[in-house]
Amino acid sequence: MALDSSSPLIIGVAGGSGSGKTTVARRILAGLPPGRAALIQVDWYYRDLAHLPFEERATANFDEPDALDLDLLGAHLEGLSRGEPAACPQYDFTTHCRLPDPTLVRPAPVIVVEGILLFAAESLRRRLDLRIFVDTDADIRLMRRIRRDLQERGRDIDAIQEQYYRTVRPMHQLHVAPTRQYAHLVVPEGGENRHAVDVIVGHLLHRLTHAVDTLVPMHGDDV
Amino acid sequence: MALDSSSPLIIGVAGGSGSGKTTVARRILAGLPPGRAALIQVDWYYRDLAHLPFEERATANFDEPDALDLDLLGAHLEGLSRGEPAACPQYDFTTHCRLPDPTLVRPAPVIVVEGILLFAAESLRRRLDLRIFVDTDADIRLMRRIRRDLQERGRDIDAIQEQYYRTVRPMHQLHVAPTRQYAHLVVPEGGENRHAVDVIVGHLLHRLTHAVDTLVPMHGDDV
Repeated sequence: MALDSSSPLIIGVAGGSGSGKTTVARRILAGLPPGRAALIQVDWYYRDLAHLPFEERATANFDEPDALDLDLLGAHLEGLSRGEPAACPQYDFTTHCRLPDPTLVRPAPVIVVEGILLFAAESLRRRLDLRIFVDTDADIRLMRRIRRDLQERGRDIDAIQEQYYRTVRPMHQLHVAPTRQYAHLVVPEGGENRHAVDVIVGHLLHRLTHAVDTLVPMHGDDV
Repeated sequence: MALDSSSPLIIGVAGGSGSGKTTVARRILAGLPPGRAALIQVDWYYRDLAHLPFEERATANFDEPDALDLDLLGAHLEGLSRGEPAACPQYDFTTHCRLPDPTLVRPAPVIVVEGILLFAAESLRRRLDLRIFVDTDADIRLMRRIRRDLQERGRDIDAIQEQYYRTVRPMHQLHVAPTRQYAHLVVPEGGENRHAVDVIVGHLLHRLTHAVDTLVPMHGDDV
């Protein structure tokens, strides 16, 4: 399979909240030539909660797979594999509603998908040609999360602590940590691990410039 | 830095006994063009116990860093980096003695070093341009170890159990498991993880064919 054929290589980057997986995904993209790779964020696929009163929306469990429309993500990956662009939804984390205008993601030789619950559904896992899990200690992830929620999302420490103990931590242990077992590669300590990103980018550049099919196709017993 | 200059890229592969690290190291070598890579095994550097009575040799602690001449390994890596061949010792695991004839390892653009305690000494870690830790569950590692010791080393289950509880298990927890933190990449489940090996090999092939210096040199604060 040549990478410049219509069938892209789909790279999945998963890991806990605050693990640095978004940084890893962005650095992989930054290392590839312009126009050769596209990014999809699983966060875009949160279900629209517009039908709920505003107060109820904030107390929803955002850390279980059912909070996301993973079937739509799977359909978009399938379409991209056939060379069709995907109209990806966009999400407003302050209102917990889907934004009116989707983002168009065009087919590219490399598609990078990143998100906490990406490996949680078997139907999604099997669409990923390479699965990378960003593994960062829980205290470091919590420090980043608190900083982000305080500074970027205007939340106070009481609300952050309540959400962390009620859903974030138990859901991480239930739905995210166990999916590390599905990774082909584990990247310790997230985006600051330049070596790991360099190895992944080097491999992709090699595949982009050589029509090699070194990655074994996924089989049922491998997911 | 071009890889075909005199300064090789040194890849370290560590992991527990039975993790599959030797298979990972051999598959990396098998994926590279003939003559472009060389293998060094840390096991070769076990200290000669010929001065001890035979019964005492078998009860030595082979799972702590001091059982190995890691200074000699470091000197050999330094020599190879300068383009000098290394006369690597060879070890007989049945007599716990060094064999009379060393193996000559010639300089190559890629040097793969593999061994349980490779990341245990800071002076060795800093010589490794890329550190890979093969991470396999303890029960799977034990199953492989028992099979090897029964079938290849002629030991019975009593001796295997005694050694496992006395040194192998506590030394793994003390000296090996903590060195996972020094890895740039963690490979889950060892040699059967073809995807991980393909990514590492693809990266090395890219570096062998392009004079790129994507890997950041090691600094003191990174080891």
